[in-house]
Amino acid sequence: MGKRIRAYAALEKGEPLRPYQYNPGELGYEEVEIQVSHCGICHSDLSMLENEWHRTSYPLVPGHEVVGTILAAGPHAKGVKVGQRVGLGWMAGSCMSCRQCLSGNHHLCEDGEETIVGRHGGFADRVRCRWEWAVPIPEAIDSRRAGPLFCGGLTVFSPIVEFGVKALDRVAVVGIGGLGHLALQFLNKWGCEVWALTSSDAKREEALRLGAHHVVNSRDIDQLRKTAGTFDFILVTVNVPLKWQALLACLNPKGRLHFVGAVLEPLTIPALSLIGGQKSVSGSPIGSPVTLARMLEFCARHGIAPVVEVFPMEDVNQAIKHLADGKARYRVVLER
Amino acid sequence: MGKRIRAYAALEKGEPLRPYQYNPGELGYEEVEIQVSHCGICHSDLSMLENEWHRTSYPLVPGHEVVGTILAAGPHAKGVKVGQRVGLGWMAGSCMSCRQCLSGNHHLCEDGEETIVGRHGGFADRVRCRWEWAVPIPEAIDSRRAGPLFCGGLTVFSPIVEFGVKALDRVAVVGIGGLGHLALQFLNKWGCEVWALTSSDAKREEALRLGAHHVVNSRDIDQLRKTAGTFDFILVTVNVPLKWQALLACLNPKGRLHFVGAVLEPLTIPALSLIGGQKSVSGSPIGSPVTLARMLEFCARHGIAPVVEVFPMEDVNQAIKHLADGKARYRVVLER
Repeated sequence: MGKRIRAYAALEKGEPLRPYQYNPGELGYEEVEIQVSHCGICHSDLSMLENEWHRTSYPLVPGHEVVGTILAAGPHAKGVKVGQRVGLGWMAGSCMSCRQCLSGNHHLCEDGEETIVGRHGGFADRVRCRWEWAVPIPEAIDSRRAGPLFCGGLTVFSPIVEFGVKALDRVAVVGIGGLGHLALQFLNKWGCEVWALTSSDAKREEALRLGAHHVVNSRDIDQLRKTAGTFDFILVTVNVPLKWQALLACLNPKGRLHFVGAVLEPLTIPALSLIGGQKSVSGSPIGSPVTLARMLEFCARHGIAPVVEVFPMEDVNQAIKHLADGKARYRVVLER
Repeated sequence: MGKRIRAYAALEKGEPLRPYQYNPGELGYEEVEIQVSHCGICHSDLSMLENEWHRTSYPLVPGHEVVGTILAAGPHAKGVKVGQRVGLGWMAGSCMSCRQCLSGNHHLCEDGEETIVGRHGGFADRVRCRWEWAVPIPEAIDSRRAGPLFCGGLTVFSPIVEFGVKALDRVAVVGIGGLGHLALQFLNKWGCEVWALTSSDAKREEALRLGAHHVVNSRDIDQLRKTAGTFDFILVTVNVPLKWQALLACLNPKGRLHFVGAVLEPLTIPALSLIGGQKSVSGSPIGSPVTLARMLEFCARHGIAPVVEVFPMEDVNQAIKHLADGKARYRVVLER
């Protein structure tokens, strides 16, 4: 497997991606190599390209919503076979031996490897990862639409599982974009009463079509006030500061305001706005491999899939610009 | 029951308490009247006396950690009998018909009556409440030490129940005062590994005696750093701003930073400090009548009680000053 990988990389911060080849070396004992057929573009790819989180090393090959087939497997790789169709998301490896891994929380492993942090990702003909994060894709799911489930999908699905959202709950999704448009679908099939909170009235009809039962303009404080004490769970998928205190007031007693969008400006939250109604504020990253596999089953069962716009991989810079300009409806996928 | 109640009241903000009599009127159908034997003084009494929460009406008779016997019961009062020893805490009545009440969350009732908000409290010979908040006290609990359980005790016990603290958990209590010294006892008997975080090294020995297995100086950032990723639950009982971000870093993945102290300065919390480790920040007020009754059983079973300093009720101003000066070890109780 010493064959060079042909990828697209940013050589420096702010540079457009260029064709880039690298030698992946020997395949690790527990690694697999995936022949990439598709790769989604996630906002985190843009953040990494711009080094917003001060974690980028260049050259950077982005791409962590990979779909492809197993081309090779190390001698100790488990759970997947050569030729099998799999996906790969934000995580590319967990230590498998820490308490988090042994508890099934591989996504919270402190020594976890992230697909595009100090490694090269899926904007390439091939990509590697440890076997536990190469998760088989059910047949019913289209390869062109599977990629975004592995990062964007899991990010909004995992908190529904981990924080115990119930079918009886009234749930609001803040921000109807790449993440939010999947959350609406999940929550609708989960049995919840689903509210879409969006700053864009143009998304009203689509939000309803995707599974929302109600749509509220999140910038209209009067509209928001009418929902006071309404929601059991508010899922924030945006990464811009909003009126958090007004959102907290929209929660039912015992409700939860949950963040999956990496809002960089610190949240300002009066303790009393939590104490009175016994409320929580929380956050989560992606989810575990088992949650990922169960999410894919749930998607296959209910016909849940992202709405995607597909670009040929060689048009990667154009695709990135489309997403960065806020034009994506709702998730951009590269096809080889 | 038209007999005037002899109480101690502040006639205006900042005034010392003076003897004060008022006519309680007819006893309500579902009300009970309690002959007060003891009443704890809580920090909330001080806050109400100073109108810190802009909710005080004067004259104010403070006192919401009442112990006494049922002197009279309205014709529809349930669950308690004349002559029975009961306690009364922060809540004096719930509507009994809203969803929260019908779900057993009477403490989250939106139309709930609070003992000293628009009503007169327990610094008096008698006090009234609806029957559901007059909760019988098990024989094993001393009347002099029972009062503080009804507000301070319930405030720290309820989150242990409501937020699912387990015997396997490692739990830190921030602030070893009226609330914290009870939390240490509860958590020790709950089976947890208990850490006391206190700014006062003088409290080290007592914290260990009360049930802490470890004591850390909460102002010593280096000591705090050594506990990074350690705690499953941090219970904040103080009402002054601390380094919340440093405390969040002390949480295990999936950990919770929980507030019961009414910190008035808003919490500043980066969303990313929640997202990475799937952490929560939350708050709670007191607890439900059932949680209160079960807490009292737990106290009786394990010999849990507050450490109190008892003052004659006529020395109420001296007792208040003792608490306000930060001298209380750990809870002040008035005795009639």
